[in-house]
Amino acid sequence: MKTVALLAERLRVEERLLQQAFAAVGWEAQLCDPNDLAIPLQETAEPLPSVSLDRERATSESTALAALLAARGGTVVNRPATTRLLADRLAFLRHLIVAGIPTPPTVVAFGEAATLRAIASLGYPVYLKSLVVDPTMPVAYVEDPDAAEALVEHRRVLGDERAVLVQKAVAEPEALRRLVVVGTELLAVIRGRGGEQPLVLEDRDRWQTLAMALVSRLGSGVYAVDAVDTERGPIVVSAENLVHFRELAEHGLPVAERIAAFVIEQVHEEQAERGGTA
Amino acid sequence: MKTVALLAERLRVEERLLQQAFAAVGWEAQLCDPNDLAIPLQETAEPLPSVSLDRERATSESTALAALLAARGGTVVNRPATTRLLADRLAFLRHLIVAGIPTPPTVVAFGEAATLRAIASLGYPVYLKSLVVDPTMPVAYVEDPDAAEALVEHRRVLGDERAVLVQKAVAEPEALRRLVVVGTELLAVIRGRGGEQPLVLEDRDRWQTLAMALVSRLGSGVYAVDAVDTERGPIVVSAENLVHFRELAEHGLPVAERIAAFVIEQVHEEQAERGGTA
Repeated sequence: MKTVALLAERLRVEERLLQQAFAAVGWEAQLCDPNDLAIPLQETAEPLPSVSLDRERATSESTALAALLAARGGTVVNRPATTRLLADRLAFLRHLIVAGIPTPPTVVAFGEAATLRAIASLGYPVYLKSLVVDPTMPVAYVEDPDAAEALVEHRRVLGDERAVLVQKAVAEPEALRRLVVVGTELLAVIRGRGGEQPLVLEDRDRWQTLAMALVSRLGSGVYAVDAVDTERGPIVVSAENLVHFRELAEHGLPVAERIAAFVIEQVHEEQAERGGTA
Repeated sequence: MKTVALLAERLRVEERLLQQAFAAVGWEAQLCDPNDLAIPLQETAEPLPSVSLDRERATSESTALAALLAARGGTVVNRPATTRLLADRLAFLRHLIVAGIPTPPTVVAFGEAATLRAIASLGYPVYLKSLVVDPTMPVAYVEDPDAAEALVEHRRVLGDERAVLVQKAVAEPEALRRLVVVGTELLAVIRGRGGEQPLVLEDRDRWQTLAMALVSRLGSGVYAVDAVDTERGPIVVSAENLVHFRELAEHGLPVAERIAAFVIEQVHEEQAERGGTA
């Protein structure tokens, strides 16, 4: 039986759905906690998963792990290049700007005074975001100068952070749409995140063009992109690995099944590229 | 008069030497504190230095700054790709391994238990290093299991660090040689770091082959590479931007002059690539 490693610290509802979806097509999905992995750089004797599905938030660390697994000939979903763009906010924005995909006005500020100046130039409210995704440095919403001063100081103390993305908040949080991509398909468009904001599935048609432009820049994969619709058209705010999808499954969307199909398709594609060896 | 921005927080002895060296060839070198820089991603009206010399330690932040300055058509020394390799220890090691340049046995561990296992597999003493250079996460020297347990726990608390490079300490610190590269030239080989370990200039000839292999991987630039000579030949341990060189200047080496010449050469090369426009 073929196996796929679910790179996650624990089995969530989503991982159980994935295990069922893989089992239905004759694959076994096993939990593989990245915390247990030690990969020697110089020798290749260490047994490593040959097929992996990254089930955690994309970070610099998960990018490194994906790159090491792929360098050993493993199939990794998402691909390392895609994970890097999901983990590196600055690289993501620069990619979209080059492709002509609208993004919120953003300034990269390399110090405290520059950050306060950038906030003032963009106008309130803004988001402060670390250049790369860092679990210890949450995204901060800044509504006024007092909050700005306190937050800039707090972030510096928190992580010795100096460079920061200052991004204009282009819409209310309720206006955000989440585009769910699996493979090259726009599987769903969601409003609301569950809980107090009930999740609503919206029509995908008006987002198809944007979704295909995103896939051509980020690559095929499994991820969610947050965007807002404005008078001047859609604006892309951020993207992340698609970790949580249980509510989509409750709405009847075959997310786990599509992910399993995409992973297996990737395995076959990479085998074909290597000349058909198993 | 042509100007070059010295990207540094303050004028050290080295920046003053650089100012003299640039002045001697008709250039003005001005201090430019990165903390004061705010670079809008979407518009290009913001005036930015057209020629920059990075005078701080290479980090993810300085890599981002170099990439943004270069994307605007600026000449940056070191080049962004070189700064990235000086800032990203894992990428640096993987680059050298691919090129067949010997490096210390190194394991990438993605969690605490894996780190302790990796340390045990390599044998004491080892170094613990963050995957990318991070001023808040110093390199730790680990001599025994008690130190290992304490350090792994401490690093996790310090920065929520989970992934770490575990690198075998292949020689005593006194055995380290520092190869100083400016442009494509091995300008000096140093033993000792000054202070209690007096700095001694050594013969460069036996290190030339290694230095040229390093330049072909890292690119031409201004940097220092730490290596040790072992019974089985030289092993490369780490590399960094060449920030401190005042003691080399005291030994009569024209470091600032060579750096200035290299920066100006880079400007001319990039102008030629763009078709000779100033």
